Amino acid sequence: MSEQELLRPGERIDDLQLMGLRVIQSPDAFRFSMDSVLLSDFSRVKNRTKICDLGTGTGILPLLLYGRAEEITCDAIEIQPDVADRARRTMRLNGLEGRIAVYTADLRKIKKILPHGAYQLVISNPPYNPSSSSLCCPNPALCAAREEACCTLDDIAAAAAWLLKSRGRFVFMLPAARLSNAIDTLRQHRLEPKRLRFVHGKADRPARLMLMEAMLDVNPGLLVEAPLIAKNADGTDTDEVRRIYHMTDTKEAKE
Amino acid sequence: MSEQELLRPGERIDDLQLMGLRVIQSPDAFRFSMDSVLLSDFSRVKNRTKICDLGTGTGILPLLLYGRAEEITCDAIEIQPDVADRARRTMRLNGLEGRIAVYTADLRKIKKILPHGAYQLVISNPPYNPSSSSLCCPNPALCAAREEACCTLDDIAAAAAWLLKSRGRFVFMLPAARLSNAIDTLRQHRLEPKRLRFVHGKADRPARLMLMEAMLDVNPGLLVEAPLIAKNADGTDTDEVRRIYHMTDTKEAKE
Repeated sequence: MSEQELLRPGERIDDLQLMGLRVIQSPDAFRFSMDSVLLSDFSRVKNRTKICDLGTGTGILPLLLYGRAEEITCDAIEIQPDVADRARRTMRLNGLEGRIAVYTADLRKIKKILPHGAYQLVISNPPYNPSSSSLCCPNPALCAAREEACCTLDDIAAAAAWLLKSRGRFVFMLPAARLSNAIDTLRQHRLEPKRLRFVHGKADRPARLMLMEAMLDVNPGLLVEAPLIAKNADGTDTDEVRRIYHMTDTKEAKE
Repeated sequence: MSEQELLRPGERIDDLQLMGLRVIQSPDAFRFSMDSVLLSDFSRVKNRTKICDLGTGTGILPLLLYGRAEEITCDAIEIQPDVADRARRTMRLNGLEGRIAVYTADLRKIKKILPHGAYQLVISNPPYNPSSSSLCCPNPALCAAREEACCTLDDIAAAAAWLLKSRGRFVFMLPAARLSNAIDTLRQHRLEPKRLRFVHGKADRPARLMLMEAMLDVNPGLLVEAPLIAKNADGTDTDEVRRIYHMTDTKEAKE
């Protein structure tokens, strides 16, 4: 099937600058953010890791993880049919439909969809904000991605605890302000925070986001990693952010 | 009473390089650490703040806070009679016995000692490590300061919750690895984490310590402040650490 046959009206193909991977996006809908790139970098992934992505959206996280370890397999869940369909076409575009499966499903019903205790890594870039009280939502797709309209962190942690093997890892990100509640929620689902990294816009600014890795059924004890600083004092990207965002450049330089 | 009359055999007087303040220390016993200076810097203190210091040791924290706001009053608790006696003599040495009162007492019996809901700020530099299983302790004073032999964080949080006014602040530090349990413990005592700062040896190293401010009976929502980095890449002190450690220099420069 040609590229054009995989595209629907209004959609476009963006090049990830990573091993020739491309992603289909719709300017009207939620597009992947650079936060996903940070989350992918934070995840420890090896070849043959069996992954589940909860709320995959464009499918960006499985693609980025595949870019780091080509022998992963991933089951990706997305509740919105049109968004899931687009992610599915992205996998076909990249010839990855055999490695990354996209399910149109509600992660709150995970027990009916995917097997128990079968994954080494569950990953999620969940909605950042609690559901707002506004009654009308002009764009449900954006709403679902940004607010906890379709699922809360509690729902996602419950799904992760169901999916993971013992000592499996759940990796996600949230605004740093939600740290205390996030730890509470994880622990209610036997997920113990093990690795935490804060993202700061600049070195002298408060943290904007946190990247968290929790493990199922392990003892307490947390590593708070070196802070991830986005910008130098003069406003340019830090060396580390340049490394994370331009993975292809680094790879090509090595090869 | 002369300086010499305030000293016991083996003790010495150290100059804090801060407003002429001095502290009596015994080389055999626990001496104050630079961590106390970081904790003092992290604390927000205003004149007339009514403070309680739980486990005051040498009395260093009240002295440092007095150095920043001369109209504070502080009740300081210390369980070890000889350590408390030394701290009491330190306050006399500085002419501060009317402003900083040192009680020889067990903070687990706080309800019998100090009034309920009377303090705006409770501060503590508690033992960093859970009690070890070793049966003999060659130096009980060191043990009490470093291990939770005499009290746990749970005991300290319970005491803080008893002492604080509504919306009062509890400020302490612990190894960063203990973050999750610390948040659990605080919340069990109606103390909500509001401000958190991690201390890193260098910018690219994991956090060693965390500085935490919790408030009594307030809603969740946490500010993760800019990281506190101790050393530059070349091993010299960072500008911020120089500012914190050499407060007198800064003050004199301003005057």
